[in-house]
Amino acid sequence: MHYRMIGYVLGMLLVFEGLFFCVPILTAIVYGESAVWAFVAVAAICLALGGLMVWKKPTSTTLFARDGFVIAGLGWIVLSFFGALPFYISGEIPSFVDALFEAVSGFTTTGASVLSDVEALSNSMLMWRSFTHWVGGMGVLVFIMAFVPISGGQTMHIMKAESPGPSVSKLVPKVKTTAMVLYTLYLVLTLVMFVLLLFGGVNLFEALNIAFATAGTGGFAFKNSGMAEFNPYVQYVVSIGMLLFAINFGCYFMLLQKKWKEACNCELRTFLGIVAVTVTLICFNVRDQFATLEETFRHVLFTVASLISSTGFATVDYNVWPELSRTLLLMVMCIGACAGSTGGGFKVSRVIILFKSFRMELEQLIHPKQMKKVKMDGRPIEHEMVRSVSVYLVCFVLVFGVSMFVMAFDNLDLVTNFSAVLACLNNVGPGLEVAGPMSNYAVFSTPAKLVLIFDMLAGRLELFPILLLFTPSTWKR
Amino acid sequence: MHYRMIGYVLGMLLVFEGLFFCVPILTAIVYGESAVWAFVAVAAICLALGGLMVWKKPTSTTLFARDGFVIAGLGWIVLSFFGALPFYISGEIPSFVDALFEAVSGFTTTGASVLSDVEALSNSMLMWRSFTHWVGGMGVLVFIMAFVPISGGQTMHIMKAESPGPSVSKLVPKVKTTAMVLYTLYLVLTLVMFVLLLFGGVNLFEALNIAFATAGTGGFAFKNSGMAEFNPYVQYVVSIGMLLFAINFGCYFMLLQKKWKEACNCELRTFLGIVAVTVTLICFNVRDQFATLEETFRHVLFTVASLISSTGFATVDYNVWPELSRTLLLMVMCIGACAGSTGGGFKVSRVIILFKSFRMELEQLIHPKQMKKVKMDGRPIEHEMVRSVSVYLVCFVLVFGVSMFVMAFDNLDLVTNFSAVLACLNNVGPGLEVAGPMSNYAVFSTPAKLVLIFDMLAGRLELFPILLLFTPSTWKR
Repeated sequence: MHYRMIGYVLGMLLVFEGLFFCVPILTAIVYGESAVWAFVAVAAICLALGGLMVWKKPTSTTLFARDGFVIAGLGWIVLSFFGALPFYISGEIPSFVDALFEAVSGFTTTGASVLSDVEALSNSMLMWRSFTHWVGGMGVLVFIMAFVPISGGQTMHIMKAESPGPSVSKLVPKVKTTAMVLYTLYLVLTLVMFVLLLFGGVNLFEALNIAFATAGTGGFAFKNSGMAEFNPYVQYVVSIGMLLFAINFGCYFMLLQKKWKEACNCELRTFLGIVAVTVTLICFNVRDQFATLEETFRHVLFTVASLISSTGFATVDYNVWPELSRTLLLMVMCIGACAGSTGGGFKVSRVIILFKSFRMELEQLIHPKQMKKVKMDGRPIEHEMVRSVSVYLVCFVLVFGVSMFVMAFDNLDLVTNFSAVLACLNNVGPGLEVAGPMSNYAVFSTPAKLVLIFDMLAGRLELFPILLLFTPSTWKR
Repeated sequence: MHYRMIGYVLGMLLVFEGLFFCVPILTAIVYGESAVWAFVAVAAICLALGGLMVWKKPTSTTLFARDGFVIAGLGWIVLSFFGALPFYISGEIPSFVDALFEAVSGFTTTGASVLSDVEALSNSMLMWRSFTHWVGGMGVLVFIMAFVPISGGQTMHIMKAESPGPSVSKLVPKVKTTAMVLYTLYLVLTLVMFVLLLFGGVNLFEALNIAFATAGTGGFAFKNSGMAEFNPYVQYVVSIGMLLFAINFGCYFMLLQKKWKEACNCELRTFLGIVAVTVTLICFNVRDQFATLEETFRHVLFTVASLISSTGFATVDYNVWPELSRTLLLMVMCIGACAGSTGGGFKVSRVIILFKSFRMELEQLIHPKQMKKVKMDGRPIEHEMVRSVSVYLVCFVLVFGVSMFVMAFDNLDLVTNFSAVLACLNNVGPGLEVAGPMSNYAVFSTPAKLVLIFDMLAGRLELFPILLLFTPSTWKR
């Protein structure tokens, strides 16, 4: 393990986190809130501690895959810990576990909240919550890669460990440039979203919050009513926005290069197909719950977009919809967004690979001597990739099972526990029943909250970086 | 595809099914029931049709893996179809889908029933239901292998396709002798069970029914109250019986050869460990629901044994237990019995392999160049085996997802659908809520019942034989 280099990158992370606090500090100054001191204090700690850690750059910057995982795992824990401090020391969230839950939920873009009255928070705290979504969405380490001079191809290990999806493709040959391209796209799309929201009559503060939370597919609400109060135009903009941020950013890069065919790949088509089918089915299923067809379509589109993109915003209480709709919603929650997007979940491309390899397995049983490869977008998928996807499913099921076991001690109903674990592991946010969209996570016990914190981090980093931290042999020489 | 040989084995199967009907025919004669004619008629059809099909033995008896799967898949459908006819033509189950559901549930040792009043059935029908459990438990094709002169090692493909667990080990070098050893052990254990039940004051008819249903880990009740009315001694005998039939029969074979160490293998120890832990936890959780500690222990042991062995007998309505217990019960339902037993579920050995390969995957991430193999009982597990187990999980999850989707149209609650699909895929029988132990499957619509029939067959044959029947390339030349 390259401890000095790990320390260096973590220090860099702290420096950046210190700088991120400028956003809530500015907000606090504008609104004249006393919470400004909490942010200034934590920012100072971050900058001081981080500054010390990056004082001397290590002579060797060689990183192995293992170091990349450890950096991602530890990095996100450090990020969340310091991100939680302002909530706690300002007294706005009195329990530290709750503050940590809120910060982890923010950075992992889950959007699950333990607050029953979000409107009681100061504006700067609300802004910080939303901003953590934006930082976590594209990945904070990817951000660092874009700006910091860590030389060599070694940085790929860090990016791989943090980026969602079965494979990370560099859009351009250099990791650093890839990171910059991604963040530029991210920034531009967020800006477009922000402007469109302003056109809808949303005020500046709200537009920024919504844009951050949508871009990161996070879904923290800053009103107790969620997104219900906003006008239909805003709801449509957010729906489309959630879907757009759930699409692989590589597609946008291809579009810019006018590679239409590469942009409209198998994953994108499947993703849009799933959205279309689910929206249609649910519209039929809930059409008697709304006055007009437009209203039905709008709320269903919003809900499906929100859950498949793992955002978790809500305009209506879909928990009271009929079982068919609830089952379909749970299913899109399981599938999740496209790889390489800011969305969570199992990822559409993984589902495609599983289905294709499943068909190939059947073929193989019939013709044992034929050696076929699974193909996607005309290219064969390596066996190693198929294997890693099924290993991912296995790990997911095991983590799910263990989480359910611990959660069961809370004696809440099965659907609540099941959907809460699913919503946290997939970084969606709200689940069903007690964990539903019109409720919150305050009801869970501290052990259950700790499990969910673990699940959110494990889900965002796609299991391995977090699991490895708890594997003894990671720490052996 | 070797169509002539497939026809020959299916014909053999029909002849044997015709002979199996002797059991209910005898029962009907003893009790002077008119249902005797239904059985005689169907038996005659089976014998005539089967006789025609086995009239001329094919010159070549070479079978490929594909043929083995098709024989198992088609064989079980044929078996269930003719097994359902007596229920239907006697008019005791007026709907054919219901009759088919009952027969499939019987042969697959699921034990899920669509009957709200089982006591209304004639004794011969009840006996036939229980006897299908016994026939299906060890496998009807294994039975045929034991008695029929199909030469060569080709029969291994058939046995592999029908036997549960990740690997089928021949206890002795010849397949035929292995099948005979298995059935002898099965018969002797059933007989011991039967005698022990008679000692408990159970009458002959009931003792036979319970022994058949326990040995096959089926769990059809012949009383509306399930097993609640029987005395504690009988309940203990059945509990132990269910656990014993959920253990790999290879262990008993090893015990007889005094190979103690081989008998008490990793899977057996894990299985008993899971039972012990689950029983302890649930006892603590439900201790206030019963008058005495003995009563608590008895009902909990019975329920855990019933669900982990995939039998599905019930002495109490565990559906009303607290959520921790319900979650634990769902979990043991998922895990299921040992490989090579008559029990269903995912199988303990598969869970062990998944856990071990999961740990190895983590190790591999840390030390990418180290090549380690997963070990069980001191022997390395081949990569191919690890792969087949994770492929099995993938298929299981996909079949589960598709089933849930179709079931959702019934608009029953999520826990009912989830537990019903789980209980049918794992051949357990009762689930939770509407599909719970004190209820039945009559409430489901016809499409839902057809899905559950598919799931029961797919679960019993471990997915592939049934899935292959629906794969177009199976039928291509």
